[in-house]
Amino acid sequence: MYTRMHTFTEAEMDRIHEASLAVLERTGIIFNDPESVEILKSHGVRMDGKKAFLSAKDIESALASCPASFTVKALNPENDRKIGGDDFVMLPGYGAPFVTMSDGNQRPSVYRDYEDFVKLVQGSPSIDMNGFLMVEPSDSDPRAAHLDMLLAGLLCCDKPLMGSPINRKAADDCVGLIRAAFGDGPGDGRPATVSLINSLTPLQFSEEMASSLVRLVRGGQAVCVAALIMSGSSGPITIPGVLALQNAEVLAGITLAQLAQPGAPVVYGSTSSAMDLKSGALAIGAPELSVIVNLTSQLARRYGLPCRSGGSLTDSLCVDAQAGAESALALLTAVNSGVNFILHSAGILGSYISMSFEKFIADEEVAMMVRRMAAPLAVGEEEIDAKGIMEVGPGGNFLTRPRTARLCRKEIFQPRLMNRMNVEGWTAKGSPDLARLASGKLKERLESWKAPDMDPSRRADIVKKARELAGGAPLLAA
Amino acid sequence: MYTRMHTFTEAEMDRIHEASLAVLERTGIIFNDPESVEILKSHGVRMDGKKAFLSAKDIESALASCPASFTVKALNPENDRKIGGDDFVMLPGYGAPFVTMSDGNQRPSVYRDYEDFVKLVQGSPSIDMNGFLMVEPSDSDPRAAHLDMLLAGLLCCDKPLMGSPINRKAADDCVGLIRAAFGDGPGDGRPATVSLINSLTPLQFSEEMASSLVRLVRGGQAVCVAALIMSGSSGPITIPGVLALQNAEVLAGITLAQLAQPGAPVVYGSTSSAMDLKSGALAIGAPELSVIVNLTSQLARRYGLPCRSGGSLTDSLCVDAQAGAESALALLTAVNSGVNFILHSAGILGSYISMSFEKFIADEEVAMMVRRMAAPLAVGEEEIDAKGIMEVGPGGNFLTRPRTARLCRKEIFQPRLMNRMNVEGWTAKGSPDLARLASGKLKERLESWKAPDMDPSRRADIVKKARELAGGAPLLAA
Repeated sequence: MYTRMHTFTEAEMDRIHEASLAVLERTGIIFNDPESVEILKSHGVRMDGKKAFLSAKDIESALASCPASFTVKALNPENDRKIGGDDFVMLPGYGAPFVTMSDGNQRPSVYRDYEDFVKLVQGSPSIDMNGFLMVEPSDSDPRAAHLDMLLAGLLCCDKPLMGSPINRKAADDCVGLIRAAFGDGPGDGRPATVSLINSLTPLQFSEEMASSLVRLVRGGQAVCVAALIMSGSSGPITIPGVLALQNAEVLAGITLAQLAQPGAPVVYGSTSSAMDLKSGALAIGAPELSVIVNLTSQLARRYGLPCRSGGSLTDSLCVDAQAGAESALALLTAVNSGVNFILHSAGILGSYISMSFEKFIADEEVAMMVRRMAAPLAVGEEEIDAKGIMEVGPGGNFLTRPRTARLCRKEIFQPRLMNRMNVEGWTAKGSPDLARLASGKLKERLESWKAPDMDPSRRADIVKKARELAGGAPLLAA
Repeated sequence: MYTRMHTFTEAEMDRIHEASLAVLERTGIIFNDPESVEILKSHGVRMDGKKAFLSAKDIESALASCPASFTVKALNPENDRKIGGDDFVMLPGYGAPFVTMSDGNQRPSVYRDYEDFVKLVQGSPSIDMNGFLMVEPSDSDPRAAHLDMLLAGLLCCDKPLMGSPINRKAADDCVGLIRAAFGDGPGDGRPATVSLINSLTPLQFSEEMASSLVRLVRGGQAVCVAALIMSGSSGPITIPGVLALQNAEVLAGITLAQLAQPGAPVVYGSTSSAMDLKSGALAIGAPELSVIVNLTSQLARRYGLPCRSGGSLTDSLCVDAQAGAESALALLTAVNSGVNFILHSAGILGSYISMSFEKFIADEEVAMMVRRMAAPLAVGEEEIDAKGIMEVGPGGNFLTRPRTARLCRKEIFQPRLMNRMNVEGWTAKGSPDLARLASGKLKERLESWKAPDMDPSRRADIVKKARELAGGAPLLAA
């Protein structure tokens, strides 16, 4: 296969690997969590206080116990998804404190928004997994916000979901709630959640992230360990430098996961990008992001690990041509590079500042197009149809052939949203752009949502468990 | 390299090749041009009237005389461009009868629009070659429209240009005008134009196209032979079928070119896509287009030929998120697939119905991002900078390192247009979307245009020659 984006040589990947190992062994990495420090120490890792000096052997034996792929189970088993190999899942946006409304203005997000996004995921043709923290529910009780989000995910959707890694208690609650929902214990090898664990670049893990990682993998859940390095700011200005630092941090997190729970399902992640030179802020619509995604995926494959990256990312603050182009470049790169876990595949705007319902629906359509582009293709005599070409002959027409009618719905992608009208038809409809076409679908999408089938006693168990974990804090989702 | 888009096996490409050859040998292909028929006949091709039955040997000896790459020369030698190998050129849109204005409405295009697009090409950071028929100059005298466009390209821009293939006379005029402009004869192996020759699918070439092809290659100019097959309408419903038919037509056109002028520089092209199932019209924003581009590029490489495809293609009628996404998917696919001659890289809207100045400027920016994504990457110790990572250490910062300041402009793409402001800054500027940001640059771009340096006597020669070729028809460009 030809590509113009960089393909690593083995020697280049070895060079990055060796650099990461040298950094971990000589400079070390800080785990700001006593439980993590204890685990590392008890496994003979050389420590200086909270700083771990991981040896090549520590890393290699951790990598040896990571599964190459795993299945994340859903309340509806038809929605179980494999993470790894040639498969990929797309997930909604993550971490937005605001919602961008149809008129382009932002407002703080609330629980109701969160639930609406869960409902969109449930009916989505392209989003395979439910998110976590798609938007921050600013009206949730801070003690119970994670429970509101998990509960919405379990009650309003039967796709697999993401777990709550925001601190030790939230991680424990996630494990407890998942046990109540799935009625099973840890260690059956089939996690029901994947949680995001980010390093604190450069070369640290916060107490919240490290402790969540330990609790989640010990509770049988999967984690995605990723670094968000801003080149030139929190990391080197060169992309190979970003990758070496990112690799050191991700390998360190994965090592902790394997020491805490050997064989724990892990994903090798990246969310690194370039700094904007004018503002010094993170630019996620930047072409460097796609360069990094392409290369990260090659490194993950070298280690035999599933890979995570972002998807429909943009710095634009509205659903415009910039949002469309930046998101499409990053999503297509993620899919073609071989990423397995594509976060932010729908909804995100403005460098993670907000989620937009219109962007979500527009992104879904682009994601369907990218899936069509990546669909397997058979190239046999039947598909080539030389006989048909000869029958039709010069100047003929294929439209009236029975074969055309029989195969057209299978062979040709039919847009739900994209405009293919001529100018007269389009003008007669008020010349809507994609944002407006998406907006027009929102109400219908939310109204067509139906609560997934669930045994009432299981539902009661889940809600009861959530209330118990909330410890008196009010729950908006129950 | 990993990719999720289909990579042909050798056997699959052989199967398509054999199918194309069988079609050409048994069904034949019609050339509606007496001169072409004479050329084919005189070289021993089996003919039945205008229908040629090309043998495998005819095709193979034609392919053997095609150059693997060639250089298209420009009035400014710094702008000469290689077509083929790992190199690629981007060109503006082609064939639009309308201009979409800033307010979203369409109007028939005029010569002044054409000249303005030439001026944009001249100042473009991403468009390597000037087009032809970027818009149809509806106010040009029909007898001289091609001369107006060629003249605008020669006088207002010193990048290489596309030739006029619209009929025999226009092709001859192109050769004549290029000789006047470059002061040299045919056959120096360095064409100054590349012209688009499209088949009349299925399995025909019109008189205009066949005769233009012959005259252009005999005049020392390059041609791109392409097919526009609409799957399910003018071609098979399956993509391998489209490719087999397209391949037959393109190989037939290339064979004619090589018989007319052995060694003529040719490009293997595709502009095929899917039919929209609702309207039956051509959908160029369709994901099938990108699938076809990716596979066409592999076939061209198999034959050792430069490849042409479309770039920033969309069915949208305005510069919205649809236009951004569809254009980005097709352009990135073209670049990563290895296409060498990327037409429609800027400006096109609405399935080729119109050109938009705003889209042109927005597309340029996306094209710069795609170029950044495809830029070569060095992965040595210097770029990995393990030493720097160790020096900075846990919790440190890379922003103040001299290396960051030294390399940041080289390593990080700086957008000219894309919004990376925060919401406060953006709102203070009136919340512009990308279309509006692009619109804001247009005046400045046109005003900053300067006529390229040209010896006044050469200029006079060119204008004189154009007047002579116009034979009394008025020229708007002179």
